Amino acid sequence: MTAPLDATLAHIDRDLENSLQRLLALLRIPSISTDPAFRSQCRTAADWLVRELRGLGFDASVRPTTGHPMVVARGRGRASGPHVLFYGHYDVQPPDPLDLWESPPFEPRVVAGAGGVRCIVGRGSADDKGQLMTFVEACRAYVAVGGLPLPITILLEGEEETGSPSLKPFLDAHRDELKADVALVCDTDMWDADTPAVTIMLRGLVLEEVVVRGAARDLHSGLFGGAAVNPIHTLARIIADLHDGEGRIAIPSFYDGVGEPDAEIKAQWSALAFDERRFLADMGVSVPAGERGRGVLEQIWSRPTCDVNGIVGGYTGEGSKTVIPAKASAKISFRLVGDQDPVKVQEAFRAFVRARLGPNDKAEFLSHGASPALRLPLSSPYLAKARTALADEWQRPAVLKGSGGSIPIVGAFKRELRIDSLLVGFGLDDDRIHSPNEKYDLKSFHKGARSWARILAALAE
Amino acid sequence: MTAPLDATLAHIDRDLENSLQRLLALLRIPSISTDPAFRSQCRTAADWLVRELRGLGFDASVRPTTGHPMVVARGRGRASGPHVLFYGHYDVQPPDPLDLWESPPFEPRVVAGAGGVRCIVGRGSADDKGQLMTFVEACRAYVAVGGLPLPITILLEGEEETGSPSLKPFLDAHRDELKADVALVCDTDMWDADTPAVTIMLRGLVLEEVVVRGAARDLHSGLFGGAAVNPIHTLARIIADLHDGEGRIAIPSFYDGVGEPDAEIKAQWSALAFDERRFLADMGVSVPAGERGRGVLEQIWSRPTCDVNGIVGGYTGEGSKTVIPAKASAKISFRLVGDQDPVKVQEAFRAFVRARLGPNDKAEFLSHGASPALRLPLSSPYLAKARTALADEWQRPAVLKGSGGSIPIVGAFKRELRIDSLLVGFGLDDDRIHSPNEKYDLKSFHKGARSWARILAALAE
Repeated sequence: MTAPLDATLAHIDRDLENSLQRLLALLRIPSISTDPAFRSQCRTAADWLVRELRGLGFDASVRPTTGHPMVVARGRGRASGPHVLFYGHYDVQPPDPLDLWESPPFEPRVVAGAGGVRCIVGRGSADDKGQLMTFVEACRAYVAVGGLPLPITILLEGEEETGSPSLKPFLDAHRDELKADVALVCDTDMWDADTPAVTIMLRGLVLEEVVVRGAARDLHSGLFGGAAVNPIHTLARIIADLHDGEGRIAIPSFYDGVGEPDAEIKAQWSALAFDERRFLADMGVSVPAGERGRGVLEQIWSRPTCDVNGIVGGYTGEGSKTVIPAKASAKISFRLVGDQDPVKVQEAFRAFVRARLGPNDKAEFLSHGASPALRLPLSSPYLAKARTALADEWQRPAVLKGSGGSIPIVGAFKRELRIDSLLVGFGLDDDRIHSPNEKYDLKSFHKGARSWARILAALAE
Repeated sequence: MTAPLDATLAHIDRDLENSLQRLLALLRIPSISTDPAFRSQCRTAADWLVRELRGLGFDASVRPTTGHPMVVARGRGRASGPHVLFYGHYDVQPPDPLDLWESPPFEPRVVAGAGGVRCIVGRGSADDKGQLMTFVEACRAYVAVGGLPLPITILLEGEEETGSPSLKPFLDAHRDELKADVALVCDTDMWDADTPAVTIMLRGLVLEEVVVRGAARDLHSGLFGGAAVNPIHTLARIIADLHDGEGRIAIPSFYDGVGEPDAEIKAQWSALAFDERRFLADMGVSVPAGERGRGVLEQIWSRPTCDVNGIVGGYTGEGSKTVIPAKASAKISFRLVGDQDPVKVQEAFRAFVRARLGPNDKAEFLSHGASPALRLPLSSPYLAKARTALADEWQRPAVLKGSGGSIPIVGAFKRELRIDSLLVGFGLDDDRIHSPNEKYDLKSFHKGARSWARILAALAE
C-alpha cells in the first residue's frame, strides 16, 4: 500500500458525513429522464455535478445533446499512468407507483434498514447517483491529500434510463476528447453485502412499444358488443403467444446467437452456491418462474427474456365503463445475450405481431432503444488489477458475475472508443432499484469510495 | 286524434327552442356517476330536475340513496286511466378520451351533423338526458294546455351507468309509492332516423374486475427478468383464452340458458334487410368480427358476449420503463341473453380465471353489477297502443327490436313492482353514446316529445 493511498483512505473515512450530505443534495433533484415534465430538473442535476467537479479542480462542463445534457470533466494525474474514463448517470427512473413509497422519493433519508444496516432511501440512491458519487468522493480524497494518481476523464450521462439515445452521436463527436485506456463504470451490484464483484457479462436490451387499433372509435359494448373487434383481445392474444408452455420465447429465430457461457464461468457460478430460495423470497414468490430447466442465475445472467413492462387500453378509472376501446398498447422489452442481433430481434418481434393481427386490426410500432449483449475479456490486465484492489478492501476475492441489466455505454465505449469497461459497483440485489423505496447501503457508499481509491492506485502502478 | 292531443302537439312545436335551451342547461352538468370526484355534480343534476318538475306541478323531490340520489315526481291526471311510471337516468358516462372531443363534452352545442342534420353534441345528449327530456317536454305541453291525460310517476336515476346499485333497495322501500300499471322507459334507439321502434329484448350484464398479482413489488426487468413472474403475461393468457377460434366464449357452461329467438321475431328481423356493411363501416372496420356463422343483428341482439373494457398494468407513461410490475388488472363485462344466470356466469368466470393462475399468481375480484336478460311479452295491450301512436307520428310501423345494451331498471320493475316496461326511445346508432362527440338529433328530440304526447293519449283512452 502506497503512502498516498493510506492518506486517501483516511480522508474518505474522516469525511464520510460530508460525503453523505453531498449525495443527499444530489438525490433531492428529481432528474427523471423519461418524463418531459422533468427536463429542467435533469439540467439542474448536471449543473450540480459540474459545480462539484470544478470544486475538485476538474475542467468540467455541461454539454448539450438533443436530449438531456452530458457532464464531461477532466482531471490531471500526478503521474502519467493509464488514462481512465469514468462513467455514471445522473438520471433516474420515474418514482411511480408513488403510493407505495414510505417516504417521498425525492426527500432522501438515512434510515436503519433490514438487520439495522444504515441505508440511504430515495429514488436514484443506488441507481445511479449513490454509485457515481463513490467515485467522485474517491477523487475528492485524492485531491485533498495531494492530487489524482492518474489522468481521469469523467462522463456523466442523463439518458441512461431511456436507452441513451444521445450517447453514440456524443461519443462520435468527442472521440478524441474522451480517448482513454480503459473505462470504469459504476452501475452494477456486488455479489452480496460483504463480497465485491466485477461484472463481465451484460445483457442487451430491445425496447418496443406496440399500439393495436380496431374500430375507428370507442364503441358501446352493449350496442356493438358481439359484432365489434376488441383490440385488447388482439393484444392479449399476441402477448399470450410470446412464451410457450416451457417459458421459452416463441418468436421465430429469436434464439439465434444465444450460446452457453464457457465452462470456466459456469463452474465459478456453480461454486457460488447461490441461494435461489432467498432470491425468490425477496421477490415475494415461492416457485421458480421463467425458462424450465434453467437455474435462476443462468436465467438472469445468461438467458434472453421478453417482458411486457406496461399495458393499457380502455377505461382504467374507478368503477366500470361499458366501452370497447378503439386501441390498446403495450411496452415490451427484450433482454439479449451472446450474439443476438438487436435489429433482427426487433424485426422478428414486429413480424410476430403482424402475423397475429385480424383483418380489422392495425399495429403501430415505436422503438425506445436497442443494444446488444456484451462480455469483458478475462485476459484484461485492468481486470486483474481491479480484482486485487477489491480483494484488499473487502478481504475476499471478487466474484466475476453476469448482469441481467443493460448498460448501453459499455457497448458504445467498445464500438466508438475501442476500449473495454471495468464494471465495478456496490449495489445490492435488495436495493429496489426502479421500485418504490429504492435504497443504497451506507456501507456500499463508504467502502465503494475506498474501493475506487484502491483501484485507482492499482491502475496507476 | 283528441282535441287536447292536437293542442299538446302544437305546443310542443311552438316551444321547441325553449325545450332545447332547457336540455342544454341539463347537459352542462357533468353528472358522471362512476367517478367519485363528480358526486356533487350528480346531486346538482337531480336538484335541477326536481325544480323543473315542480314547475310543471309535479310533487317532486330528491331522494337520497347510499350512492347518487333518485328523483321521484308524481303528477295527477285529468282522467283516472292507467297509472304510468316513467323512467330515465340523469347520470352519464365519463367523457374520456377527452382529446378526441371536437368541443368540450360538457359545453353542449347544436351543430349541423352528417347530411346537414341538426344535432345536439355533448356527453349525455343521447344517453340519457336528451331522451328523458322528450318525456318531460311532452308533460310540459300537456300541463300548458290543460293537464296530464293520466296519472304519471316519474323516476329518474343517477346510477344507471354504474349498474344501478341502489335501484333494488329503493324500489323495495318505495313499492307502494311507485305502484303503476306499466312502465315507460326512454333509453333505447329507433330503427333508423325515420322508423320508430319498441325494444322488446334486452341483454343482461355482468361487470367484473380482476386484479392479478405476481411478485410482492415492482421488479427491475434486467436484474430479475427471466426468473420473475409477470402478472401482465398471466392476465394476457387469461384474456386470450376467453374466446375460441370461432369467436365463441370458452368459459365452461357459459352458454347455459342461451336459446334462439322465436321464429316470428327471427322472421321480422330477416325482413328488416339490415345493412351489415354500413354498420361495419360506421365502426370503421371492414370484416365482420364476433361469433362465426351469426349475422350482426343476431350477434348484438340475441347472442351473449364477453369484452375486456379496460386493462392496465406496469408503466404506461411516455417513453419506457424497464419494470416487471407487481400487478395488472382488467375490467371485463358479459352481455347475457335468454335465461343465462348472472350469478352463475360470474362464478364460472372467476373459476375460469383461477384455473389459469400460476403458482405465484394471486387474483382478486370485484363485481360492478350483474343483471339478467329480459323480454317484453308480445301480447301486452300497452305495446299495441304504443305501436299505433308511434305509427301515427312517424307514418311508419314501429320495428320490434332487440337491444344489446342493458337497462337494469326493466328487470327491477319486473321483479320488484311486477310491471312490464314499454321501451321507446329515439336514439340512433350513430349517436356515439359512451364515446367522444356523443350527439342527439334535434329531430329525435322534437318528434320524441311528440311521440310521448301521442303514446300518453293512446294509453289514456
